[in-house]
Amino acid sequence: MKWVVWIGSVRKGSYNAAIGRALKDLAPEGVTVALLPSVADLPIYSGDIESAGMPAEVSALGQEIAQADALVVVSPEYNYSVPGGLKNAIDWVSRLKPMPLKGKPLLIQSASMGSLGGARMQYHLRQILVGLDARVMNVPEVMVGAVHKKVSEDGVLSDEGTRDFIRTQLQAFAAFAAKG
Amino acid sequence: MKWVVWIGSVRKGSYNAAIGRALKDLAPEGVTVALLPSVADLPIYSGDIESAGMPAEVSALGQEIAQADALVVVSPEYNYSVPGGLKNAIDWVSRLKPMPLKGKPLLIQSASMGSLGGARMQYHLRQILVGLDARVMNVPEVMVGAVHKKVSEDGVLSDEGTRDFIRTQLQAFAAFAAKG
Amino acid sequence: MKWVVWIGSVRKGSYNAAIGRALKDLAPEGVTVALLPSVADLPIYSGDIESAGMPAEVSALGQEIAQADALVVVSPEYNYSVPGGLKNAIDWVSRLKPMPLKGKPLLIQSASMGSLGGARMQYHLRQILVGLDARVMNVPEVMVGAVHKKVSEDGVLSDEGTRDFIRTQLQAFAAFAAKG
Amino acid sequence: MKWVVWIGSVRKGSYNAAIGRALKDLAPEGVTVALLPSVADLPIYSGDIESAGMPAEVSALGQEIAQADALVVVSPEYNYSVPGGLKNAIDWVSRLKPMPLKGKPLLIQSASMGSLGGARMQYHLRQILVGLDARVMNVPEVMVGAVHKKVSEDGVLSDEGTRDFIRTQLQAFAAFAAKG
Repeated sequence: MKWVVWIGSVRKGSYNAAIGRALKDLAPEGVTVALLPSVADLPIYSGDIESAGMPAEVSALGQEIAQADALVVVSPEYNYSVPGGLKNAIDWVSRLKPMPLKGKPLLIQSASMGSLGGARMQYHLRQILVGLDARVMNVPEVMVGAVHKKVSEDGVLSDEGTRDFIRTQLQAFAAFAAKG
Repeated sequence: MKWVVWIGSVRKGSYNAAIGRALKDLAPEGVTVALLPSVADLPIYSGDIESAGMPAEVSALGQEIAQADALVVVSPEYNYSVPGGLKNAIDWVSRLKPMPLKGKPLLIQSASMGSLGGARMQYHLRQILVGLDARVMNVPEVMVGAVHKKVSEDGVLSDEGTRDFIRTQLQAFAAFAAKG
Repeated sequence: MKWVVWIGSVRKGSYNAAIGRALKDLAPEGVTVALLPSVADLPIYSGDIESAGMPAEVSALGQEIAQADALVVVSPEYNYSVPGGLKNAIDWVSRLKPMPLKGKPLLIQSASMGSLGGARMQYHLRQILVGLDARVMNVPEVMVGAVHKKVSEDGVLSDEGTRDFIRTQLQAFAAFAAKG
Repeated sequence: MKWVVWIGSVRKGSYNAAIGRALKDLAPEGVTVALLPSVADLPIYSGDIESAGMPAEVSALGQEIAQADALVVVSPEYNYSVPGGLKNAIDWVSRLKPMPLKGKPLLIQSASMGSLGGARMQYHLRQILVGLDARVMNVPEVMVGAVHKKVSEDGVLSDEGTRDFIRTQLQAFAAFAAKG
């Protein structure tokens, strides 16, 4: 089974990227995990650009998603919602035909330095995915609070409790995705 | 009184831009209306770019908002939420100090070809603006459905009913903004 | 296959109840449809009442849901969200063990006299159902606007376009529920 | 200045009620604080009951709100949203003419035993209040996590950090409400 991971943050030292990189180790056996390209690689969506021809990076991104068995989004919350860059990438992908998020098993994770752990981002993202008809897992939900205390200085998700909880979630997600 | 208008769409023939351009005519006397630069003028937000120095376009955008008495957002709904490009622009502006949306009187308008008129965008945008402490007007709400029948081929908001309703809303907004 | 229908309104002449009653005719062959008891039959949820013993009506309601293969919620929107009475019924059911909404195939329909057709209710309900782990169908979404023109004076959903669209949705839901 | 407090929970030992009772001590000088009746005192909303005559308890509740200078809602989160009982009370009050929430300065507080502190309830409540045109304060937001460690066995909000933070919020709210 092949999963791809979409990181909502562009920053090199991103805590959410640290979690995203850790998924390879935390996923159940038999699952390969690859990171999708940065959401910063795409222009701001414009219907005029699209009319002139779908950008190659969008098509390539869509193909990576299409070829994966499942998608994990790991993202911070920006201003109580989905980061604009990630939303912009979703807006682009939503224009592809066939649309690769349709029916795709999808898992959401978030992290923040505060106590909410990015919760507000998750529910906005869930609404965004309704019309796109992604197949989003409900529970358990992973919202990592105080993430700056759980990632080491060299960008490794080191907190054992968090690692265990994510392992449990990924196990559930593997079963969820397999039902497809 | 000076208002600035933020358009959520980048497309040249955008229906929402047509509404945004009409506001100049529809606003009460004594109000000047100017359009903010395109949300496509900004890079995808990255904390690394910010650390290297706030981009000049972000600072300039922030200043235009700061110098205005009020802000009107006119935006389509993309995938049941705020367009990524507009959200990205908000994410940038949210990083300025002082943060120009704080306490700013703010009005939301949306339009779509369907019957919901962009409603889902509006409630996500309202949540986004809570933490930024913008002073958002509640009612009346302008959500223009079937907008393709209400804008002429040369991009003019021609539907009289819609123009009247927007006039009424802008009148209420002028009073709301004046209370500041 | 047996479906139960939960009506969000209590009013005898409710338009949403009219839609709920029509589902029997509109569901695919082989599906039986029964209405759940009125949400007005339950007291306002209180942990003290629950501690003194789960009310018999709650247990009975839970059993009807548990024994059904799928659940259809048909509800108006009250104040931009789920009617308090329906939410109260969900709050009660959520306390049952085993919790009958867990994994239950679930469909949402709404209607209003305005043009939004109850859309805001639907997305709040979807968020409510995440933690309860119901299996909610994404699309197509049925939001009936101008419903007062689509239900006859004797409370029959008479509009053929609406009936056809609901038929299409129920067909999709039957397939969705069968995957269970 | 007179504030009234609406408690979203009915349970006698409610943590949110403990916070609600503490507001009297924590409010700035010159503010009197009174609790509104329990949301369990109202029937489930029905348009038929309303048509037969607005229940006396609803009118009385509406009058208490109308006569207050501001309203504070203190509520738990039930199933990721507003408790059904509180929403039902809002649904009733929304039917009064004049509608007492219109323009009313309003503050939201929530508490839960988990780490989110009822956050999901707050954003649903904010959306509910848009159409009712309440004047809801943005920030600071009070979401008390791990509330069971912050309320004493005899139901007193004893945690000093929480008390201080609420004091700060109420000070800001007094200024916000005064602008009215």
